[in-house]
Amino acid sequence: MNEIQLTEVSKKLKSIIRSVPNFPKDGIVFRDITTLLKDKEAFKLAVDTFYQKYKDIKIDKVVSVESRGFIFGSILAYLLGAGFVPIRKPGKLPAEKIRQEYQLEYGTDAMEVHADAIKPGEKVLVHDDLLATGGTVSAACKLIERLGGEVVGICFLIELSFLNGRERLKNYDIFSIIQYNSEQEM
Amino acid sequence: MNEIQLTEVSKKLKSIIRSVPNFPKDGIVFRDITTLLKDKEAFKLAVDTFYQKYKDIKIDKVVSVESRGFIFGSILAYLLGAGFVPIRKPGKLPAEKIRQEYQLEYGTDAMEVHADAIKPGEKVLVHDDLLATGGTVSAACKLIERLGGEVVGICFLIELSFLNGRERLKNYDIFSIIQYNSEQEM
Repeated sequence: MNEIQLTEVSKKLKSIIRSVPNFPKDGIVFRDITTLLKDKEAFKLAVDTFYQKYKDIKIDKVVSVESRGFIFGSILAYLLGAGFVPIRKPGKLPAEKIRQEYQLEYGTDAMEVHADAIKPGEKVLVHDDLLATGGTVSAACKLIERLGGEVVGICFLIELSFLNGRERLKNYDIFSIIQYNSEQEM
Repeated sequence: MNEIQLTEVSKKLKSIIRSVPNFPKDGIVFRDITTLLKDKEAFKLAVDTFYQKYKDIKIDKVVSVESRGFIFGSILAYLLGAGFVPIRKPGKLPAEKIRQEYQLEYGTDAMEVHADAIKPGEKVLVHDDLLATGGTVSAACKLIERLGGEVVGICFLIELSFLNGRERLKNYDIFSIIQYNSEQEM
């Protein structure tokens, strides 16, 4: 897919996303992907756009963060012939695991992955639905690297460009299908 | 896929699931599917088994319950050419929605779906990773039916047969790939 085609796809999919002002709190515009997911053509177009990007790269595992990240992450794992690894909120995984804390706007949160989820040297594609400040995915990459995995790409359905998450992830190859250049863009 | 083939698939996939005693509490054996998800052949075999079951049935939407249900549910939606509808924990969905409460062992919980997620008359396949008592999926079916959807099938990766969840869902067509006949089965 060339740049012109990708711009067309982006425009089309953006038109299907529902922007909900003041959710979850005043001043925030929530980008609701459920209107895209329920539309079979739009859903397929989004999946196929990700697949085209990575189909010629060797990928052993696709890693996604709970829970919206599971939606496209698992499909990509299946289509790319890779295994799927869920990163979960604390207390959900039953076996030996490692934990990574990360900063929220107020306070900290943590995520966990099973210690046997990734083998040293494995090529890992990371997916999350939304790139905001990059804190969540940055923590996910740390978990992957602590297990010896190599992050060969990170993809998002939506990138909130004005939050500069890309800067925080500058050591990685980043791909997003849809970008928003301001909080208020509709 | 005939019964003999399905029995073979079931046996193979069961051997890859990790059973963790006393998680999340004493006396419970947790069936951990992450060992299956990370194994690309096993993961593909599970997906393809679901797909074979439903590929000739008209399905408009696949509905899954947060969050492990998203993993196979979204892949099935993609492969079946359907839209995907996530049912979420309260407070996560930003637009007009409906809510269903359901019983837990102690107390109640609730789940929500967007009011525009399913149109009257749409054919819906429901997926969750695990069938225990059937309370979660029963509530999901109620939400779908309140929106006018028709549940044409419900599929699970794992069925805890000894909890008789099938009885609670007896008005539906149920399919599970792997069955456990007692809590302690290893």
